[in-house]
Amino acid sequence: MNEAPLSVAAVATANPVLVEVTRGTVVESRHRGSIAVVDAAGRVLHQVGDVAQAVYPRSAIKPLQALLLVESGAADRFGLGDRELALACASHRGETVHTEAVAAWLGRVGLSPDDLECGAHLPYDPKSMEALLRAGGHPSTLHNNCSGKHSGFVTAALHLGLPVKGYIRREHPLQQRLYRTIEEMGGESLAATGRGYDGCGIPVFGVPLRALARAFARLDDTAGLTPERADAAGRILRAMAVEPVMVSGHGSFVTRVMQVAGETVRLKSGAEGVYCAVLVGRGIGIALKIDDGAGRAAEVAMAAALRRLGAFTAEQERELAAFLEVPIRNVAGRDVGVVRAAADLS
Amino acid sequence: MNEAPLSVAAVATANPVLVEVTRGTVVESRHRGSIAVVDAAGRVLHQVGDVAQAVYPRSAIKPLQALLLVESGAADRFGLGDRELALACASHRGETVHTEAVAAWLGRVGLSPDDLECGAHLPYDPKSMEALLRAGGHPSTLHNNCSGKHSGFVTAALHLGLPVKGYIRREHPLQQRLYRTIEEMGGESLAATGRGYDGCGIPVFGVPLRALARAFARLDDTAGLTPERADAAGRILRAMAVEPVMVSGHGSFVTRVMQVAGETVRLKSGAEGVYCAVLVGRGIGIALKIDDGAGRAAEVAMAAALRRLGAFTAEQERELAAFLEVPIRNVAGRDVGVVRAAADLS
Repeated sequence: MNEAPLSVAAVATANPVLVEVTRGTVVESRHRGSIAVVDAAGRVLHQVGDVAQAVYPRSAIKPLQALLLVESGAADRFGLGDRELALACASHRGETVHTEAVAAWLGRVGLSPDDLECGAHLPYDPKSMEALLRAGGHPSTLHNNCSGKHSGFVTAALHLGLPVKGYIRREHPLQQRLYRTIEEMGGESLAATGRGYDGCGIPVFGVPLRALARAFARLDDTAGLTPERADAAGRILRAMAVEPVMVSGHGSFVTRVMQVAGETVRLKSGAEGVYCAVLVGRGIGIALKIDDGAGRAAEVAMAAALRRLGAFTAEQERELAAFLEVPIRNVAGRDVGVVRAAADLS
Repeated sequence: MNEAPLSVAAVATANPVLVEVTRGTVVESRHRGSIAVVDAAGRVLHQVGDVAQAVYPRSAIKPLQALLLVESGAADRFGLGDRELALACASHRGETVHTEAVAAWLGRVGLSPDDLECGAHLPYDPKSMEALLRAGGHPSTLHNNCSGKHSGFVTAALHLGLPVKGYIRREHPLQQRLYRTIEEMGGESLAATGRGYDGCGIPVFGVPLRALARAFARLDDTAGLTPERADAAGRILRAMAVEPVMVSGHGSFVTRVMQVAGETVRLKSGAEGVYCAVLVGRGIGIALKIDDGAGRAAEVAMAAALRRLGAFTAEQERELAAFLEVPIRNVAGRDVGVVRAAADLS
């Protein structure tokens, strides 16, 4: 039996606390992380914590991944509109509006849910999940939150004359083109960053947080992009604002922000506490990572960052108040605490 | 539009990283926290991070709260056995074995699920949740993970001649006796710590992490406890080992550890990243808190701490391997990463 002391040296350089979770009179839990605010030229306008660290962007890069669908000509070839482009950017919540729209898209291009390689999971939306189960149903690839993105992938593969089968594999030309797109938009080499696989099966690679922010800024300030990419960026940003429910789902943070402030903000969440946004018309990109991966903290941190950067009018801020300070309710429905930005970020 | 720099001073004294979450070739997320290892006399044998901090123990104190049920004579009055005592300590997963046992208990004491004030929620066990919904059912208070604890509360209230109605209220004599029990067992004043409400509606109060660990040590090394409390502690520890499925559910970490190493370990989880344990026969208590509240990290940190303290034989460690390094699988079932203890804790 080993009883040697568990001595662990304190880590000297921790990212700051961005978000606090209260219960009653005290803070119960804390979330640390970093935030990068960058312009299209790569100038870091504001930073909190370590913004050079490479993170797996996860779903936050869906709007960047959607560039290929448009700039390749695939979207025009198949007559895709704002709904499809928004779905290509989506981590949707599996509501009927989502699954029906994805099914219709696939049908239009002559494909089916079986061609998607993302796998099936229950809807993220609790009501839709419950309804599916009560009706005796089973989830299909349509319900997968990434099915819009994957529909974009197979559509682009079709148009480019690439094999539709195996499109999620790292060696597939589609994935290689997506990698180059992200690298180009971020402006930093990704050759030596982490490599892994996402929840939906596609490859992931690390991207420095500041490069992520820059990539989002460049969706708005398109100087230096090819005409095709600049056009694609504009169409993607428009689609997100026109079809905000497609990008996430009714009542969600991402959807509500774009419903309320869609002229000035586009944003996208990623798993493990990643969030990106662009302040449209100002050429400013935001990227943040919560160290511990918590989605509840990433949302509040993004809400606070947007507010701090003047993204909202006073009226919009009031409409989004419940996302700036998120109430925690217990099983009986009693308010017991809040999730809020830490003082420095307020 | 306010574009003043978001300057946030780095926090100098962060708790160390206890748990890492990997994806592919790199660490994707990190969880910080603190761990206290304390004996029954209050000597801190090992510490990691800040162990003086007061935390809301949440469900981790259920075994301590169960002392009242036994030492008051209520358990004997109503002929409660190991199953009920284990349920009183449980955050159960809402499987049929749990709901049926709670229902039977309430019936035996002449009460019903309507007497529980914890509220209803869907079972924590995904299979049981799905089965309930597919069958067209709706959750009752029985499915609430705290229903065993609350059954212990109403049983104790009955026996003590206290009102059963309103037993969750802070002013109720039952809650006041529970508060004193925790304060006595931990050996530190709780007068100035945080105050709030738990998910199930009962009051919460902050307890210094080291006092939590000491309280658990005292369940085993009962010197200084009244004979009634010492007897109650022994019966509670036995019940947890005899009925490990009741304490949590099939396949869960808490249940598996006690199924595999139940002669030497009792443990209990709490929301927001709290875990407590006692090394039986050695008079050692362990309490940990993950700063950001993540359950995935609290489990791995507790597994690593138990291993580090020699709680497992080599064979037991092999049986529990999947809890020491937890595989992360994507939707398609591919292994994409792990949740593991950080180097200092391994």
